Amino acid sequence: MRHDHVLTAKQFSREDIEAVLDRAADFDGPTGGTRHTNTLLGLLFFEPSTRTKMSFETAIKRLGGDTIDMGSIDSSSVSKGESLADTVRVIEGYADALVLRHPQQGAAKMASEFVDVPVINAGDGAGHHPTQTLLDLYTIRENAGLDDLSIGIMGDLKYGRTVHSLAHALATFETTQHFISPESLSLPAEVRYDLDEAGASVTEHTGLESVLPDLDVLYVTRIQRERFPDENEYRAVADEYGIDLAMLDEAKADLSIMHPLPRVDEIDPAIDDTDHATYFDQAHNGVPVRMALLDSLL
Amino acid sequence: MRHDHVLTAKQFSREDIEAVLDRAADFDGPTGGTRHTNTLLGLLFFEPSTRTKMSFETAIKRLGGDTIDMGSIDSSSVSKGESLADTVRVIEGYADALVLRHPQQGAAKMASEFVDVPVINAGDGAGHHPTQTLLDLYTIRENAGLDDLSIGIMGDLKYGRTVHSLAHALATFETTQHFISPESLSLPAEVRYDLDEAGASVTEHTGLESVLPDLDVLYVTRIQRERFPDENEYRAVADEYGIDLAMLDEAKADLSIMHPLPRVDEIDPAIDDTDHATYFDQAHNGVPVRMALLDSLL
Amino acid sequence: MRHDHVLTAKQFSREDIEAVLDRAADFDGPTGGTRHTNTLLGLLFFEPSTRTKMSFETAIKRLGGDTIDMGSIDSSSVSKGESLADTVRVIEGYADALVLRHPQQGAAKMASEFVDVPVINAGDGAGHHPTQTLLDLYTIRENAGLDDLSIGIMGDLKYGRTVHSLAHALATFETTQHFISPESLSLPAEVRYDLDEAGASVTEHTGLESVLPDLDVLYVTRIQRERFPDENEYRAVADEYGIDLAMLDEAKADLSIMHPLPRVDEIDPAIDDTDHATYFDQAHNGVPVRMALLDSLL
Repeated sequence: MRHDHVLTAKQFSREDIEAVLDRAADFDGPTGGTRHTNTLLGLLFFEPSTRTKMSFETAIKRLGGDTIDMGSIDSSSVSKGESLADTVRVIEGYADALVLRHPQQGAAKMASEFVDVPVINAGDGAGHHPTQTLLDLYTIRENAGLDDLSIGIMGDLKYGRTVHSLAHALATFETTQHFISPESLSLPAEVRYDLDEAGASVTEHTGLESVLPDLDVLYVTRIQRERFPDENEYRAVADEYGIDLAMLDEAKADLSIMHPLPRVDEIDPAIDDTDHATYFDQAHNGVPVRMALLDSLL
Repeated sequence: MRHDHVLTAKQFSREDIEAVLDRAADFDGPTGGTRHTNTLLGLLFFEPSTRTKMSFETAIKRLGGDTIDMGSIDSSSVSKGESLADTVRVIEGYADALVLRHPQQGAAKMASEFVDVPVINAGDGAGHHPTQTLLDLYTIRENAGLDDLSIGIMGDLKYGRTVHSLAHALATFETTQHFISPESLSLPAEVRYDLDEAGASVTEHTGLESVLPDLDVLYVTRIQRERFPDENEYRAVADEYGIDLAMLDEAKADLSIMHPLPRVDEIDPAIDDTDHATYFDQAHNGVPVRMALLDSLL
Repeated sequence: MRHDHVLTAKQFSREDIEAVLDRAADFDGPTGGTRHTNTLLGLLFFEPSTRTKMSFETAIKRLGGDTIDMGSIDSSSVSKGESLADTVRVIEGYADALVLRHPQQGAAKMASEFVDVPVINAGDGAGHHPTQTLLDLYTIRENAGLDDLSIGIMGDLKYGRTVHSLAHALATFETTQHFISPESLSLPAEVRYDLDEAGASVTEHTGLESVLPDLDVLYVTRIQRERFPDENEYRAVADEYGIDLAMLDEAKADLSIMHPLPRVDEIDPAIDDTDHATYFDQAHNGVPVRMALLDSLL
């Protein structure tokens, strides 16, 4: 993938994914190096996402490189009316690759058309966030394998960009995907259509109970307060689509529970001390996966 | 101290303190190195403290390592309702040690219970700030020695966390401590009690004059405007508990004047050019002391 | 220039300038190194200027060094009332050189009087910004040479600090300078006087047309909305002192168009794909020029 742009998880073939995950496994652990000394990664976060930013920073620094951070847009040339095309063309002169987070869908693709260095999409609004998908896949593979897998994906399936990208990527493996959500937050018809087209094995549910015993992985997402007209309605849904220790009696002993974090109340902290809790490892996996991706691009 | 948490100056024995100060002396000067290449220090400042942050940054970078900065909490997952326990467990996956500044007393101790990497308390509200104490002790030792020492500590002794930690630490050496403050800002009874219990030699005063001629070190602290009901009352106290060039006629020729900085009006800038001025050296000493501490932990 | 302060472009002789530009040419390209490992550059930006900051960051990191950033002044000791003199004396203990951006004219000169490490002025209000001048000169030399040069400088010539410094520096070479602006934003009398004193060849115009065919370089600057009483007046002037593709029919085939960026509407994006467009290269040249300057100071 040397010198490619990374715009969406859809651009990866099954072989691409496996190559990155294999390389990530090499980088998992206290690995560091001087492989990319003098490599500078430009960070352009047009909206805050500290977690993603810190993970990219850690990845490039563990590889021996460093970052150049545009900082918040209030203090940048953007506030003087500069276009995104101009901003990326200037910063391309400072950095060997650009990581772009932008509230507008399609921003990364647009930016990639103006520069010669690789652009990595770190989230473009309702669009894509391919490195999140890669770290999710890595975590699933480490814990349950990607084939012969039964995964439940629960919570906000309507607006959850993470979920859509993951579902598409899983469709290239031998997995069965069970989607669990309230009616009002169920999988968009077009996503379901694409999964069916790809030959994915998919079921949809409004409750976790019936499907929980079959799962190898349960991927929980945050239900956002702002999707609901009032606090009561939000609380009712949030409680129903959360998980606590008692419910796990019905689960496989080796069920892995994942969550893209931050969580609020979706997962009972009492689960943190069980072997089911995989969400902190999942966050940590962002580092070896991004190291592997950067290493393959630079 | 390898892999220990550093939560309060009280956890250090006299031997611990002397070991760190000796190591700091090795690092004083233009020392740098590649001793800790690939070491990443996670900076979690839940309230701003640029001076402390820059000093830790300098220390780890002079050791050959680098930082991963959470940035301001407005832009972090904290603003989405994430708990401190979750935040530190995620960032533990990026960094080899965490530096935590938090407005809430006990935050560093709590955080240390959730992670395996060392947590360094960089100030927890009314609680502790152990690296400030170490750099104060280092500065005193360099300028006047820690034994057979007569030190005056002046200003806000009631709310001044710095002062309480320093006083406790000095109680383990052969020092006489003179506390100078207005009645309303005098040493809390419990701090005085602890010092007496520790066998410290302590006197208290409302004015500097009587005690100034005996002092080897005068430690001045900032009196905060917000402690007073009105500007006039504040100004009167601030003027009385400041120091100017003329007053130094009564002092020993080798009196060292210290201040944790920033100062406002407590120390006349005319003193800056005299040999008494030790406060800028004191600030600079934060670097070798934190290098020594990090080197002993990592 | 080892250990000098860099306060204004006026301090450079023609020989100084040529030495820095020659060294910059060595650094142009993917050069990096370990020449300045363990060198820390202190960044003190009392007002935001992300572009300049990123360029300095890239320069020191490409040289193998690193930065220590004071961050925004809201979160620093400055907000507690600390003087600039105190701030720079503290940070001098962390860094090997200081880069200072400050809204007040003369701030860098004042700061330089309090510290022993080199201070580099990165803009002091209506004062100076010498590294911008150096990168402009470098870009002109690369594209058209500094002697036998006919340059047009267009836009806000009254408030444009960049323009005044560049004009002074060009006066030491064999250049003809044509200034193009509305009457209300023409070159201040004292700048014109200094140029005449220096023996510079200068003409002034209110329109570009008559002079465009002669130019080797056209330096366009941004006309600031806030200089005009209303939007209409601003728009009228901004349109007249911008440039589009059609106008370039009258220009030399090898005319270089420069702009300090960010641009708003002054240069038609259709020009970006022509060989005339030199403004992105100009921004990128900030890196080798600042590498050369830092290398000569440290």
